[in-house]
Amino acid sequence: MSELISVSQAEALIAEHMPSFGSERVRLDDAAGRVLRQSVHAEHDHPPFDRVMMDGIATLWSETLPQRLHVAGAQMAGMRRQSLSGEGDCLEVTTGAMLPHGSDCVIPVEQVRRDGDDYVLGDDCHPFAGQFIHRRGSDCVQGARLLSPGMRLGPAEMALLAANGVANVEVASVPSVAIVSTGDELVDVGAALGEGQIRRSNDTAVRTALRMDGFDRVAMEHIVDDEAATRERIAALLERHDVLLLSGGVSMGQRDYVPAALAAQGVRKVFHRIAQKPGKPMWFGIGPRGQAVFALPGNPVSALVCATRYARPALLAAQGMAAPVRELVSLSEAVDANPSLASFLPARVESDASGRLVAYPVPSRTSGDFSSLPRTQGFVQLPPGQGKAPAGTVAAFYRW
Amino acid sequence: MSELISVSQAEALIAEHMPSFGSERVRLDDAAGRVLRQSVHAEHDHPPFDRVMMDGIATLWSETLPQRLHVAGAQMAGMRRQSLSGEGDCLEVTTGAMLPHGSDCVIPVEQVRRDGDDYVLGDDCHPFAGQFIHRRGSDCVQGARLLSPGMRLGPAEMALLAANGVANVEVASVPSVAIVSTGDELVDVGAALGEGQIRRSNDTAVRTALRMDGFDRVAMEHIVDDEAATRERIAALLERHDVLLLSGGVSMGQRDYVPAALAAQGVRKVFHRIAQKPGKPMWFGIGPRGQAVFALPGNPVSALVCATRYARPALLAAQGMAAPVRELVSLSEAVDANPSLASFLPARVESDASGRLVAYPVPSRTSGDFSSLPRTQGFVQLPPGQGKAPAGTVAAFYRW
Repeated sequence: MSELISVSQAEALIAEHMPSFGSERVRLDDAAGRVLRQSVHAEHDHPPFDRVMMDGIATLWSETLPQRLHVAGAQMAGMRRQSLSGEGDCLEVTTGAMLPHGSDCVIPVEQVRRDGDDYVLGDDCHPFAGQFIHRRGSDCVQGARLLSPGMRLGPAEMALLAANGVANVEVASVPSVAIVSTGDELVDVGAALGEGQIRRSNDTAVRTALRMDGFDRVAMEHIVDDEAATRERIAALLERHDVLLLSGGVSMGQRDYVPAALAAQGVRKVFHRIAQKPGKPMWFGIGPRGQAVFALPGNPVSALVCATRYARPALLAAQGMAAPVRELVSLSEAVDANPSLASFLPARVESDASGRLVAYPVPSRTSGDFSSLPRTQGFVQLPPGQGKAPAGTVAAFYRW
Repeated sequence: MSELISVSQAEALIAEHMPSFGSERVRLDDAAGRVLRQSVHAEHDHPPFDRVMMDGIATLWSETLPQRLHVAGAQMAGMRRQSLSGEGDCLEVTTGAMLPHGSDCVIPVEQVRRDGDDYVLGDDCHPFAGQFIHRRGSDCVQGARLLSPGMRLGPAEMALLAANGVANVEVASVPSVAIVSTGDELVDVGAALGEGQIRRSNDTAVRTALRMDGFDRVAMEHIVDDEAATRERIAALLERHDVLLLSGGVSMGQRDYVPAALAAQGVRKVFHRIAQKPGKPMWFGIGPRGQAVFALPGNPVSALVCATRYARPALLAAQGMAAPVRELVSLSEAVDANPSLASFLPARVESDASGRLVAYPVPSRTSGDFSSLPRTQGFVQLPPGQGKAPAGTVAAFYRW
């Protein structure tokens, strides 16, 4: 049996061997959720002009501003810049309009009253120069760096792209992924269940996890326990995809034709077995074209934990995404540590009254027991240790 | 000006008036990320049979188990149940296979050595009855409730659906949403920018936010400042969609034809203006067919804050989703509270060494300044208060 490596060694080895998936230019509409691969600078000052902040009137303020102002015209949002000439005049303005030439004060409509061709200022109206004006460039100046490569394009990032005229944007390409399950005992969700059979579910779990990160180029494939079929299918999948996620792992069982099929195609093992529970049998290798091959353990909890802890972050990092901020939690109760293995404990998390995120481990009977997972948001990673980790122990948390 | 209502009053009024979007049956493949609207029970015991947990051999344990066992056949994963008859015999087994009749002990392949038609137990092999057997029903029994209405279908939930033969699943229908921007000053991301114009971006921000929650039936519409066009478009949109999200709000400006157009179509105002900053001008109403109409403020930060704080949670709740667990953070530094308004403070969050989630407010110059938002993960909601909220104040956090 090969030597066990640590969780962080496994992470480092994967990072070292992962290919890059390159980038592509897409329409802004198609960029939501993708990983940015360019810098974005302000197209112009924001706002690009002195901007009216209220519906009302614009005038030139002075110590002797009359209470009655003559309406000399209007400056609506979207109009070219108008001019105000006469003292004691005003222009009607709307929110978002350019501040008219010759004016320096916006008075909200709530503080004035229309009277024929005039506006009369209310008694409680005490305007001052510069009020309700959003100055040109006050948010940011032309050329300022707004977005950097590696950012995930969420609502705010997408808004900045739109606001700065980035109609086509350079984002990380989405790799083509195949999720492969093996084994005669596995049948489809819609099929009749024979004696000795169970339904395939790991492939669905892993596909859902990947979809949540925007990996939507995913093929699902089931390979039966046949040496020739396995070799042929593995060869075809390596030809067609950038990433293979095998569910069921590579074991020492006599009917496990996967290791030989991978080796025959030139896939080189990087590691096998990690000092962790569940998920010890995790295997990782690299194909001749740089294809990443993750062989996830077959037990449902192990498969989902390993996909979440290794495959998802590795695929995002390979897209050039900046490393996410690590989330820490505090254990609600003492739990048994394993002296030689890292423990992944599915847990429900909740903020306590002090803003601390507390993890309540939800015990599962075996690594095959995934019926309790819907009550959890992810898992705590507890390092190897002697005896019990006491309540209040702080540890990293990984969300499904 | 209408009375200001509180944030929680606004939430309650929206919840009270939101329509239900109904449910529909979809193929499991299309259910990822959707809100479950049925209960799911275990199709059979899990595992459905006494299951072999290791590749190796199965035998009947006894005090006098010989060191050499005769291979009487094989029980591979997916095969119907075999029988072991002779004492001192064994069957080759693979992980996931049924435990053969007449056997009660699985010995891993690592602990034995093949010798002709026999397996020889290694010196370090000390088997016992029941070892490496995953007992039928030990994870859950047939009929056990696994999933409840209101759950979001993530990886674990999807795996349970697959494992229990739910090939078609009842989920909340996705409402048809129109995101409507108004104003002559707004031009498209790809268009040339004239004097007095800026690019539309709120619609992109809101659409991205909705997409992250699976709301993908979204139309985008821009209406110019024209009374007849506004009336005609609003009527058509109310005909076609369940939800309208207006960006630009309803103001008192003379060119704002939206309020009249909504009223003409029978949309009834539920509230206007919330005691909050930014986002005070938020408006909410209900159309004659129960259409929900959110008029978000026009400033970019206000629009995104209100979409995140009100529209997204309301749409999810209207789909029947269980209320999410509230996330609390601790302020990194003292911040000025507003005596009469709730404050929404965009912030970066990070776990401290004790597992406390600390929010670092990222100041923005105005509610129009969204260039600093990419450095934040959401916003803190600080209730109205006198003076400064000290560092360490615990408050609710809402993620973009």
